[in-house]
Amino acid sequence: MAEQKLPTRAEDFSEWYNQLVLKAELADYAPVRGCMIVRPYGWSLWENIQQALDKRFKATGHLNAAFPLLIPQSFIEKEQSHVAGFSPELAVVTIGGGEKLEEPLVIRPTSETIIGHAYAKWIQSYRDLPVLINQWNSVVRWELRTKLFLRTLEFFWQEGHTAHATLEEAEAETRQMLDIYTDFAVNEAAVPVIPGRKSASERFAGADQTYSIEAMMGDGKALQSGTSHNLGQNFAKAFGIRYLDREGVLQFCWTTSWGLSTRFIGAIIMVHGDDQGLILPPRLAPTQAVFVPIFKTDEEKAVVLDAARKASAALVAAGIRVRTDERDGVSPGFKFNDWEMRGVPLRIEIGPKDVAKGTVVLARRDKPGKEGKSFVPQEGLAAVVAKTLEEIQKALLDRARAFRDAHTREPKSFEEFQAAVETGFALAFWCGSADCEAKIKDKTKATMRCIPLEQEGGAGVCVLCGQPATDKGIFGRAY
Amino acid sequence: MAEQKLPTRAEDFSEWYNQLVLKAELADYAPVRGCMIVRPYGWSLWENIQQALDKRFKATGHLNAAFPLLIPQSFIEKEQSHVAGFSPELAVVTIGGGEKLEEPLVIRPTSETIIGHAYAKWIQSYRDLPVLINQWNSVVRWELRTKLFLRTLEFFWQEGHTAHATLEEAEAETRQMLDIYTDFAVNEAAVPVIPGRKSASERFAGADQTYSIEAMMGDGKALQSGTSHNLGQNFAKAFGIRYLDREGVLQFCWTTSWGLSTRFIGAIIMVHGDDQGLILPPRLAPTQAVFVPIFKTDEEKAVVLDAARKASAALVAAGIRVRTDERDGVSPGFKFNDWEMRGVPLRIEIGPKDVAKGTVVLARRDKPGKEGKSFVPQEGLAAVVAKTLEEIQKALLDRARAFRDAHTREPKSFEEFQAAVETGFALAFWCGSADCEAKIKDKTKATMRCIPLEQEGGAGVCVLCGQPATDKGIFGRAY
Repeated sequence: MAEQKLPTRAEDFSEWYNQLVLKAELADYAPVRGCMIVRPYGWSLWENIQQALDKRFKATGHLNAAFPLLIPQSFIEKEQSHVAGFSPELAVVTIGGGEKLEEPLVIRPTSETIIGHAYAKWIQSYRDLPVLINQWNSVVRWELRTKLFLRTLEFFWQEGHTAHATLEEAEAETRQMLDIYTDFAVNEAAVPVIPGRKSASERFAGADQTYSIEAMMGDGKALQSGTSHNLGQNFAKAFGIRYLDREGVLQFCWTTSWGLSTRFIGAIIMVHGDDQGLILPPRLAPTQAVFVPIFKTDEEKAVVLDAARKASAALVAAGIRVRTDERDGVSPGFKFNDWEMRGVPLRIEIGPKDVAKGTVVLARRDKPGKEGKSFVPQEGLAAVVAKTLEEIQKALLDRARAFRDAHTREPKSFEEFQAAVETGFALAFWCGSADCEAKIKDKTKATMRCIPLEQEGGAGVCVLCGQPATDKGIFGRAY
Repeated sequence: MAEQKLPTRAEDFSEWYNQLVLKAELADYAPVRGCMIVRPYGWSLWENIQQALDKRFKATGHLNAAFPLLIPQSFIEKEQSHVAGFSPELAVVTIGGGEKLEEPLVIRPTSETIIGHAYAKWIQSYRDLPVLINQWNSVVRWELRTKLFLRTLEFFWQEGHTAHATLEEAEAETRQMLDIYTDFAVNEAAVPVIPGRKSASERFAGADQTYSIEAMMGDGKALQSGTSHNLGQNFAKAFGIRYLDREGVLQFCWTTSWGLSTRFIGAIIMVHGDDQGLILPPRLAPTQAVFVPIFKTDEEKAVVLDAARKASAALVAAGIRVRTDERDGVSPGFKFNDWEMRGVPLRIEIGPKDVAKGTVVLARRDKPGKEGKSFVPQEGLAAVVAKTLEEIQKALLDRARAFRDAHTREPKSFEEFQAAVETGFALAFWCGSADCEAKIKDKTKATMRCIPLEQEGGAGVCVLCGQPATDKGIFGRAY
């Protein structure tokens, strides 16, 4: 029964986010600085994300496995870029079973090294390829500035790791997984994302090529929401992952890795949420519809609850994730606010008059007030609810896409560029030099999010230096 | 194409187990001593175990969540018995982000402490109770003698943690979860288990009462396969988990915890496996049936593969987990051995003569040789396969139960007791004293596994001291 009011997004977007995460009971702070407890409501959302991704991974031939969380510190040092990228962020175990360890162990910050070690042992011949493995786990990176879901010391994710006979196959896998992330984001989370290629400076430590999906949050900032890496032969050479080809010649494998984390929950919050709280896309919502019974007397209560339970049972039978809020001692108004804070896509109100008329009131979370309300018959309710949930799913995607497009500009000058990244994205030609990229970041705090895979074609000049450029990049300030 | 032959169980049960785990590709050793990689085949089995348990947990009102793996070392010290039990086994992180930590952190050996801390914050009133949360994760305990699945530094499990208003509710929850483990073991894994109460000396560190399910392995030894603890108010008092009752009085909660781990995979291996390898219960098997096509010429191959694929599709449509072994360059005999090693419950052979006759050969994994073979029509195959899988499931349970009963004795004297625990279990009256329990262990290496919940009634005398006793205990040598 805590005070449920959030600061508005316009007032303080960051504080709106922090309070929403706590008040919707998605997550909580842990006793260790920067660590996170994902509460049941947040974890149910993550389970739905997991299922949506996992079925796509399995449909493309991947299997899950589990690798240990403890890695010998020396492993991290075997791949040159990898050690540079991850060494400053490690959590190190120096004592085990009461004794100082001979070699310190690190808690995995990511698992390329230990999986590379295993693949070197398992892979002998071209017959063993490709190896297509994923794991659902958590990793630890010693971050200094943390924020629930967006950046925490420990976070939950999946990391896929594959090994292939050729560069072409590895690149095809890298792109396939990027496509899967894009499909998931757009069609399950209603989050429109831009799939593209990272610049060299933003690549994963140890990758030849990194691709990402980038989304625009409600404050116009960018969130990298999933990444897919072509690791070339870097880890194969560091760990000796080799195979005998059809001609009997020993070759190094080509490997990939790709990951999507609980950070994506932050994207869902910041893309869809409004000043009343969370708005969840129906396909991922733990609860898709909630019945709120309305009554004054005990007689009314008996009649209304009976009708609500019957209607709810029909929805459950139709595969809709529904619950009935039967809490005593709290008003319907309190319940409305509570389920709005938690972002349940559809509220179903039922009172004595509704029972008499054989109707209910549907109230869409994405359309506050009268606009989102409709009176529908109890008979055939499941079909109407299912259809309404699909409409909400589509409306959320359309709205997010319209918002992003309205906040994306194609600047004609660097002045326009600077103005664009104040409020959203700039889509601009870039010469490709790290120097221009660094200067842009320095002057505007905006980074090159990605070079979108879809390009209009044609050529132009770099928005900063004026040199010829062939590709446009998406620039924005990022989380 | 490695040498596939195992030592027999009679020759060397322990080495049979070790080699089977590796050759069936269930798990592998990790570079860190005592850690384990669960390979895709083993993890698919674990995923099926997870699903079978998770649906039971959710059906009884539990939700999943995720708590951090890093715990302040001081937390472990807050509950007196807990610190005594777990301190010697901790992995300690002393360095984070390149700097020495002010307070060392431990990797969770179990999560009562960090969850107790969170519950103290979340629970205010009787309206907040019960809290019913589970998590699927891994924990680390610095074990000295390790064995894949049975005892590893890091292992995978679920740990449920609940908080209640009364002792009675906590005890009912503890027993409910023991019942769920029993139901899972018997009806999904075909592992007959004995649910019972642990003696004080075998209780979880911090529990008032520990219950377990105990199974007999193929060598007559016992494996504790799941535990459920009534923690009384011990952790509630250590972490201040309190609620205002209906009268407005502040009360300590009563808490429980319960867990089942990847150790259970060890039980499945050692209960059902034979000298040819693994035998998986159909309800949990990643692959329930495998088609092995048999042909010599290319023409035969085309015809046979076509028939196998069509038959396989019909089985998939019926919800059966099936695959077709289309590997080139290996003989049918090799494939037979390979799938036997991996314990696939049913092999379906199909050759040119079968195609001509419209039949296939079914070969049951649990009945080697002619006894387990039958010729059945391709028409209506799915129904026959489904029925056969159910028969195998039942046969495995019956066989395991018969083995256990044949290796369980009710000794009339201590001499008979000593002989009984050489080859299996002894079910014997025990006076209840820790002294007798310790002496029995000392003399026979057998421990009191549990006091079965089901007792015949009546009274007797302690098998060691001859004093009056009311309950019989199961004694055995244990993993």
